[in-house]
Amino acid sequence: MPVHFNNAGAGLMPAAVTQAVTDYLAEEADGGSYEAEQRHADTLEREVYETLGRVIDAPSDDIALFDSATRAWSSVVSHIPFAAGDRVWVTPYEYAGNLILWTELRRRLDLRVEVVPVLPDGDLDLDWMSTHIGDDVAFVSVPHVPSGCGIVTPVEEIGKILAPWRCYYGVDGCQAVGQLPVSATSIGCDLLTGAGRKFLRGPRGTGFAAISPRLREAVALPFYDLHIADMTGGDDYEVHSTGARRLEYAERSNSSVMGLQAAARHHLARTDDGPGMVREAVREAIAQLPGTRLIDPGSRHASIVTFVHDRMPARDVQGALHTAGVNVWTAQGSHTPLYMNAVGVEAAVRVSPHYYNSMAEVETFARVLRDVLR
Amino acid sequence: MPVHFNNAGAGLMPAAVTQAVTDYLAEEADGGSYEAEQRHADTLEREVYETLGRVIDAPSDDIALFDSATRAWSSVVSHIPFAAGDRVWVTPYEYAGNLILWTELRRRLDLRVEVVPVLPDGDLDLDWMSTHIGDDVAFVSVPHVPSGCGIVTPVEEIGKILAPWRCYYGVDGCQAVGQLPVSATSIGCDLLTGAGRKFLRGPRGTGFAAISPRLREAVALPFYDLHIADMTGGDDYEVHSTGARRLEYAERSNSSVMGLQAAARHHLARTDDGPGMVREAVREAIAQLPGTRLIDPGSRHASIVTFVHDRMPARDVQGALHTAGVNVWTAQGSHTPLYMNAVGVEAAVRVSPHYYNSMAEVETFARVLRDVLR
Repeated sequence: MPVHFNNAGAGLMPAAVTQAVTDYLAEEADGGSYEAEQRHADTLEREVYETLGRVIDAPSDDIALFDSATRAWSSVVSHIPFAAGDRVWVTPYEYAGNLILWTELRRRLDLRVEVVPVLPDGDLDLDWMSTHIGDDVAFVSVPHVPSGCGIVTPVEEIGKILAPWRCYYGVDGCQAVGQLPVSATSIGCDLLTGAGRKFLRGPRGTGFAAISPRLREAVALPFYDLHIADMTGGDDYEVHSTGARRLEYAERSNSSVMGLQAAARHHLARTDDGPGMVREAVREAIAQLPGTRLIDPGSRHASIVTFVHDRMPARDVQGALHTAGVNVWTAQGSHTPLYMNAVGVEAAVRVSPHYYNSMAEVETFARVLRDVLR
Repeated sequence: MPVHFNNAGAGLMPAAVTQAVTDYLAEEADGGSYEAEQRHADTLEREVYETLGRVIDAPSDDIALFDSATRAWSSVVSHIPFAAGDRVWVTPYEYAGNLILWTELRRRLDLRVEVVPVLPDGDLDLDWMSTHIGDDVAFVSVPHVPSGCGIVTPVEEIGKILAPWRCYYGVDGCQAVGQLPVSATSIGCDLLTGAGRKFLRGPRGTGFAAISPRLREAVALPFYDLHIADMTGGDDYEVHSTGARRLEYAERSNSSVMGLQAAARHHLARTDDGPGMVREAVREAIAQLPGTRLIDPGSRHASIVTFVHDRMPARDVQGALHTAGVNVWTAQGSHTPLYMNAVGVEAAVRVSPHYYNSMAEVETFARVLRDVLR
């Protein structure tokens, strides 16, 4: 078993998760998938939404499931009826995927995309936000934790700044859910997206969102699927639900949803202190090696530790560590381009331990990394 | 083990499929999912596209994977740059989900949606199509086999009629792939969609499409994901691929893709004669019972046999059969509303055997159905 410090890519699924998927698949193969769906309707239609609602502290009616967090984000954001001239705020930590969507929407809808400035230490400039907010700001997009470095953004404080204004507030919680306490309610956001596969340790191909009533009423979808809509006569249709599930499609991998449900329950039953101690030990192990530079903005850090080495490219470090039994990943600068371009990083080694990693694994990591960078 | 005559809902996965999913999940759980993805990159990035290309006779570069056939269809059709006044042709067999999308696009883009007429026996009126086709027809949508009855539409002949004209030609192959020989090339369509879970016997949450080069160049997507696109500087992006995969999102359930690949290989290795004999025996068993009426338009029939009974509602027949160990499903009239409204059917019992079902199972079905309808 490798040392798995790539939880920001995908966490290792606990046995309860693979078991839930596998058992459900077997049931489908034995007796039919539609028939299994009927038997497990209460879990699939109600329980999983309530469980995820507890994970991110949101009403279950606000929860919708998708095959990825990217799908969750774009399924909402693509269909917001922006007006020409609307301002959209992103941060330097915005994910490249979101930026591509903003770039295209900016062109189509004549939006003004503005980048919230940061203080010298990398923290977001909340004073700037308080001063510059206005009712022409239509959307504010903030990653709770970016994918390329471990800063924790002050999403609750930002929520308080934005609360009096008309903008929608979207928080990309992909790298936060499962490693930090996340509360859509305390954040006060209209959209919070999460991935099943990362720190929540669920299956690949699962994502979810909490979508506020006012946002889901505003989005103008081109398509509503048959789990919540019907043709009425030959040329009109009706949508039967006001819940967030109206953004879902009817068909999905039920076995993956069962795995996501198991992951969420596993997460809610945790009694550990989180990855903080392991993360700090990892940071220290990296910092004390000659030639390393931590990409480490901000005053609050999550369990994503990225660094560059002055001689060895990140991809080579990743490969050498993998060969030695340690899983880390390469954070492409182009995936968080605004910040990474500013600090001149093309690619960084990304080390993302989780609560289930041990101090003994940190020692292994430190020893192997020392050898690799020697 | 029940008698599974609900393959039009979801077929029973062969052991090779559940094994492929389960093995891959175990590998992810043991050593990391991104790491497994790297090891299986050739299967996930190349082989599965080639295999599906063989299943529906399309170039592998035309193939894109989705989490459902509905997603495949709407990911393409929603983004076609129609012009106001464009005519769109559907048939009376159009799926309600597609009709909802057409209804919304009609409103937004001022399209004219026209229903191709049928002959008295239910076959599509090809002469009408030949006579009325013109360059103001922008899209023609035909289900290869509808979900609510077993007519096989003459998709190749329609392709020949449409070939000289500028319209895009989309074929919903959900209920055809896996039970009939399907060739995107012979059909000459721009879009052919399929579901993994039905007659192909793959996992839930898998769908695919063959998308012609001219159609995928035409669609104007709001979003391209990071597997094929990159931000270039802070305010522009580049798409690196012209293949159909530009319509995919980067994240997906790799274990499901491995299962889909196993299902496609299992299908390609088949040497049986298809479900034809079993289907005919099922039709006969139903037809000879008093009070039944087959919903049976057209001159060519696939393995979807639907019927109503003059006293017992379809849902009750389904329930009673299920209790007796026979899986069938209820075809809601509202899911194929144009045709079902015309023939006055609110709900029909849908019986969809496959090649792996036996004549002994048909006997069981016939006996149980006779008891249920007594």
